[in-house]
Amino acid sequence: MSSQPAHPTLLVPGPIEFDDAVLQSMSHYSESHVSAGFAATFGETLSMLRQLFQATDPAAQPFVISGSGTLGWDLVAANLVEPGENALVLSTGYFGDAFADCLRVYGANVTKLDGPVGGRPQLPEIERALAEKKYKVLTVTHVDTSTGVLSEIKGLAAAVKKVSPETLVIVDGVCSVACEEIAFDAWGLDGVITAGQKAIGCPAGLSISMFSGRAMRALESRKKEPAAYFASMKRWLPIMQNYEAKKPSYFATPSPQLIHALNTALKQILERPLSERFQKHIEVSDKVKKAVGDLGLKIVATKPEDQSHAMTAIYLPDKVAIPDILPKLLSKGIIFAGGLHKEIGTKYIRFGHMGVSALDPKRDDIDRALEALQAALAECGYQKP
Amino acid sequence: MSSQPAHPTLLVPGPIEFDDAVLQSMSHYSESHVSAGFAATFGETLSMLRQLFQATDPAAQPFVISGSGTLGWDLVAANLVEPGENALVLSTGYFGDAFADCLRVYGANVTKLDGPVGGRPQLPEIERALAEKKYKVLTVTHVDTSTGVLSEIKGLAAAVKKVSPETLVIVDGVCSVACEEIAFDAWGLDGVITAGQKAIGCPAGLSISMFSGRAMRALESRKKEPAAYFASMKRWLPIMQNYEAKKPSYFATPSPQLIHALNTALKQILERPLSERFQKHIEVSDKVKKAVGDLGLKIVATKPEDQSHAMTAIYLPDKVAIPDILPKLLSKGIIFAGGLHKEIGTKYIRFGHMGVSALDPKRDDIDRALEALQAALAECGYQKP
Repeated sequence: MSSQPAHPTLLVPGPIEFDDAVLQSMSHYSESHVSAGFAATFGETLSMLRQLFQATDPAAQPFVISGSGTLGWDLVAANLVEPGENALVLSTGYFGDAFADCLRVYGANVTKLDGPVGGRPQLPEIERALAEKKYKVLTVTHVDTSTGVLSEIKGLAAAVKKVSPETLVIVDGVCSVACEEIAFDAWGLDGVITAGQKAIGCPAGLSISMFSGRAMRALESRKKEPAAYFASMKRWLPIMQNYEAKKPSYFATPSPQLIHALNTALKQILERPLSERFQKHIEVSDKVKKAVGDLGLKIVATKPEDQSHAMTAIYLPDKVAIPDILPKLLSKGIIFAGGLHKEIGTKYIRFGHMGVSALDPKRDDIDRALEALQAALAECGYQKP
Repeated sequence: MSSQPAHPTLLVPGPIEFDDAVLQSMSHYSESHVSAGFAATFGETLSMLRQLFQATDPAAQPFVISGSGTLGWDLVAANLVEPGENALVLSTGYFGDAFADCLRVYGANVTKLDGPVGGRPQLPEIERALAEKKYKVLTVTHVDTSTGVLSEIKGLAAAVKKVSPETLVIVDGVCSVACEEIAFDAWGLDGVITAGQKAIGCPAGLSISMFSGRAMRALESRKKEPAAYFASMKRWLPIMQNYEAKKPSYFATPSPQLIHALNTALKQILERPLSERFQKHIEVSDKVKKAVGDLGLKIVATKPEDQSHAMTAIYLPDKVAIPDILPKLLSKGIIFAGGLHKEIGTKYIRFGHMGVSALDPKRDDIDRALEALQAALAECGYQKP
């Protein structure tokens, strides 16, 4: 039994439900951020991130900084692109568009390729764009939390290497790390940015990222210093290196409690092979998508190969509105999210199926959610065709 | 009795020891950041910050953003100063110097007035500087955590109003908010930035700030947009306004657990008059400073009126080194911090006496710390003169 008080089950695409031990780590007694004990915890946490990202090259560099996942965009935009340099942004929804905004704020010259609603930009179009001018970075949202569209990263990274080998490949993995496969080294990625509160299963408040040796050299060889202070990777780099060597170091105070929770979450994740974790997320996602189809509903991500295994964005039937169905789901103990897309935001709901809700055999969150969805739709007058 | 496991008492100048109920709030079950319940908690938290800062003018605006206290400097530097505008930084140690660095990163033209080691810049010098050119902002570190030097804010703000009324007065209150008096409106302040983990008594991970209506108008009337994304107050402003109206809103995911902990900490603080809280910190500080004097030791902040009530930076006797005394203190269950100042860092230790350690009558942290200090010095061979 969970030690948490009874509460509705949170099945939005992040924050997710948390494991008891992770939540208990949030209440860790106060420690100095420069104590030997905390340095050991933080150092171990950074080393575990290398395993999670499958980043075995010692030149790769993890960063864990207090902040929202959004801060990861600032890390990329302020540190890896210089004003006037070109950035190619592949957008599959709200979060790709916002990453482009962030890059522009720091002076990048942004070209954005938009997928159709529910789809993603295709390789021929991307290769044509890469051949037209020199891009410092290409960014892609692995799973866009607004649409549930999954981007195919391995083939994309290979295409960039072929057409424009100098371009850094940056993945927004906020809604994919720890549920969709990411092989940082094997795929030749240069940056993956994420946050704790999605599939990693740690309460929100941490920006978590991994950058390649090549990205770190691009940082090192900038013509001008990064135009950010708290988001300066140059200022954080020695701090992360020291902590990973279990030596305390100071630039800005980290959150010992959040780092303890992340440490606990990563230990739980790494107890089992990552491949098993990814496969289980696929199985749960397949089950959800089949049930949604059986209900006669459509998924925002049109093609099966573009559908994320982290979440499902589900079009509502014509006569069912978000303000009707979400309260009915809540009355059955289930929380889904509304839509978040400029064109179709009012027409769909989002069901997150990551972390303990998908993996913990003692939980029945997914089955209860599917039953609640069916019952709530019926209460809204919907009959499946 | 505390529900926390036995652990050495953390008496560094932040993070501090936390109250049980605050720590328990860190383990709050998962909630959506856009749920009505969380919006109510966040909204109440923002409203309570107005009371803590004594900011009754409705035009004043609180911000709570995931990040370290350092992020507050970015808020000021990226939003309230435009590139090429002048900033006058009053420095009383490491943190004043670093605030100046942050302002320069965003393009401010910085003039820094340094106090002597253990002292602060004086009003005649400050008024002369203000009369020489037009400064967009003046920044002052209320208590510099590196030295324990207290700056006098009320008179300073009055002097700025007299000599250069257009200059925004910005206070770095990281180590002063909730233990030193700050009357935001009455003193005519334009910004106070702080963090949770010092006298507020909430685990680290939140940048907390208050800005005046005048500061918000300066933000609104910028010639160029802020050159930061996550640290853009323009992007956060509608979010904070919505949450305070208990309406969910989204720019970047906040940390529900940290906001719950801050909510609990603020409720505890506001249960009693703030004047009583400030007075109690003065009494505890006076007791510490008297005991340090009785031991024949000197305080880094030279003059009594320049000594903070949050912490005491204590010069070690000639033959006692930091690596000798800190482990001896730890063996007696007390954690102090080493020095953090470019000129005298190896010569002193820092004793934080904020929050529950100073206020909770069920705790004897301060007495145990003073006994441990005396015993550790004796073990190091020091005899008081």
